[in-house]
Amino acid sequence: MYKKDIKVVDCTVRDGGLMNKWKFDDDFVRSVYNACVEAGIDYMEFGYKTSEKFFSKEEYGPWKFCEEQDVRRIVGENKTGTKLSVMVDIGRVEMENIPPKSKSVIDMVRVATYVHQMDKAIMMAEQCLEKGYEATINLMAVSKVNEKELDEALADVAKSKVPIFYVVDSFGSLYCEQIELLAKKYLDMLKGKSIGIHAHNNMQLAFSNTITAAIHGCTMLDATLLGLGRGAGNCPMEILIAFLKNPKYRLLPLFQSIQDQIMPLQKKISWGYHIPYLVTGAMNEHPKEAMDWMESDKKNDFVGFLKHMHDNFAILE
Amino acid sequence: MYKKDIKVVDCTVRDGGLMNKWKFDDDFVRSVYNACVEAGIDYMEFGYKTSEKFFSKEEYGPWKFCEEQDVRRIVGENKTGTKLSVMVDIGRVEMENIPPKSKSVIDMVRVATYVHQMDKAIMMAEQCLEKGYEATINLMAVSKVNEKELDEALADVAKSKVPIFYVVDSFGSLYCEQIELLAKKYLDMLKGKSIGIHAHNNMQLAFSNTITAAIHGCTMLDATLLGLGRGAGNCPMEILIAFLKNPKYRLLPLFQSIQDQIMPLQKKISWGYHIPYLVTGAMNEHPKEAMDWMESDKKNDFVGFLKHMHDNFAILE
Repeated sequence: MYKKDIKVVDCTVRDGGLMNKWKFDDDFVRSVYNACVEAGIDYMEFGYKTSEKFFSKEEYGPWKFCEEQDVRRIVGENKTGTKLSVMVDIGRVEMENIPPKSKSVIDMVRVATYVHQMDKAIMMAEQCLEKGYEATINLMAVSKVNEKELDEALADVAKSKVPIFYVVDSFGSLYCEQIELLAKKYLDMLKGKSIGIHAHNNMQLAFSNTITAAIHGCTMLDATLLGLGRGAGNCPMEILIAFLKNPKYRLLPLFQSIQDQIMPLQKKISWGYHIPYLVTGAMNEHPKEAMDWMESDKKNDFVGFLKHMHDNFAILE
Repeated sequence: MYKKDIKVVDCTVRDGGLMNKWKFDDDFVRSVYNACVEAGIDYMEFGYKTSEKFFSKEEYGPWKFCEEQDVRRIVGENKTGTKLSVMVDIGRVEMENIPPKSKSVIDMVRVATYVHQMDKAIMMAEQCLEKGYEATINLMAVSKVNEKELDEALADVAKSKVPIFYVVDSFGSLYCEQIELLAKKYLDMLKGKSIGIHAHNNMQLAFSNTITAAIHGCTMLDATLLGLGRGAGNCPMEILIAFLKNPKYRLLPLFQSIQDQIMPLQKKISWGYHIPYLVTGAMNEHPKEAMDWMESDKKNDFVGFLKHMHDNFAILE
């Protein structure tokens, strides 16, 4: 499947940081960055942009904040073919935390939002555009959004200057038919804009949903090395690149970083397909309960977790 | 996605045995059997049917042979809703190894074949039908078969009495568009027959390809507990059952067997998604090279494996 418009976005550090509070050392981040550059990955997302007004630097590592000097320590002036991205959460960042593009090595700001915050997300993304950045809006948890709310939000986005909008399967609960419907809806209601896909692997569908989205016209594809990311993790970058067979990408640098840095991390953090994550995904629930269970000594008591979820969430069904 | 015609076939012991020469103890097999019965799984495949003429009982465990007394030791008369299956390989079994159905607790014989053996496969499957069994033909390695050969084989199957025919992604190299094409071709050329799907997880597409096949009309769905199977393994049964949300199936007994028996086995056998299996899948090659690599002390040298494969298989490309 060769599609020339496709751009691949590495989120290894940003989404993976949700598992260790972004406490990656420089060697780790440099390894991912070098892999992205050498593999020809279009964008690398370094982390979130926020400030000490919202989060403590004692509790969180540098990639929760992505301060200019921290990013430059890894990338210098980033004279490479890989653009750099940061994500911002509505309500957890202020515009003054984002310098004008002329003072930053960052190229793109992605605004993560829930549907009820869409007006704020549009405002923030447009302000980022005015500051000289590329900008996207990533609507999280769409599997919980009703049709009417979604249509209203998309109508607002359609009128905005924001050029890129994401299908985000936050809970890893969507399958191919739903991804196809969302991709077609977004493309139809947001004519002229690019659509992205950010998938989670609770049901082992992250890669599959990513290529389904690409088949139906999505062009910004999020992925992470070995699927590193919150809970069940993301679309594995190495599968996506092996599959795309696009001559602009190279697989070997990704394998190097995986074996040097990502595999050793697996001994410390349990991301990826595990049955508690399957349960929350299949129930269309936030992975938080599963993440807590995976941190406990009951990690491998799957029967217990299923009963726990039924007891606690049956009232929501 | 509710489809009432769907039958789920558990292959945990049969396909998983490819990783340990079917040396499962009775507790393991009984746990899988009890899980299938209690979960309402339609078929459980116990192993292969062959004889000591072809394989040594010193080298292989009992589920390579599925002798009647071994199967009955686990299932008694199998007065349950779960039917029992065995697989046979063309050239590795003789019809005299298969007793009349009246003398066996087995319900179904699945004939695994390569395309050039299709006449023998049809003959054997029809003989099994005459002996009173249900019978299927599972055409392996279809990703290596050219269109004309496939059409000829399907034309022969269409004329046969064999009621069930399988899409088999032996190398884990197929993705949704190819699965859809094969499912439609098989259904179109084999009118009146049921079509099955047996997927491998090299590219984390086993579950996804299984539901894609189901969406396009396949009704026999193979799966294994925690995806246990050769190399990257199979479609995970627990994801399939969680997804189908069909009231005839229950998830909890599957979780019980997984935590009691399948998880502990993971400490001994490395099935499931690993990068060497990704490489053979993406290259549309047999997983043998990857399995050998996974058994060696170079297991986590992915860069080395990719170079090894390029050096050894480039001439085939």
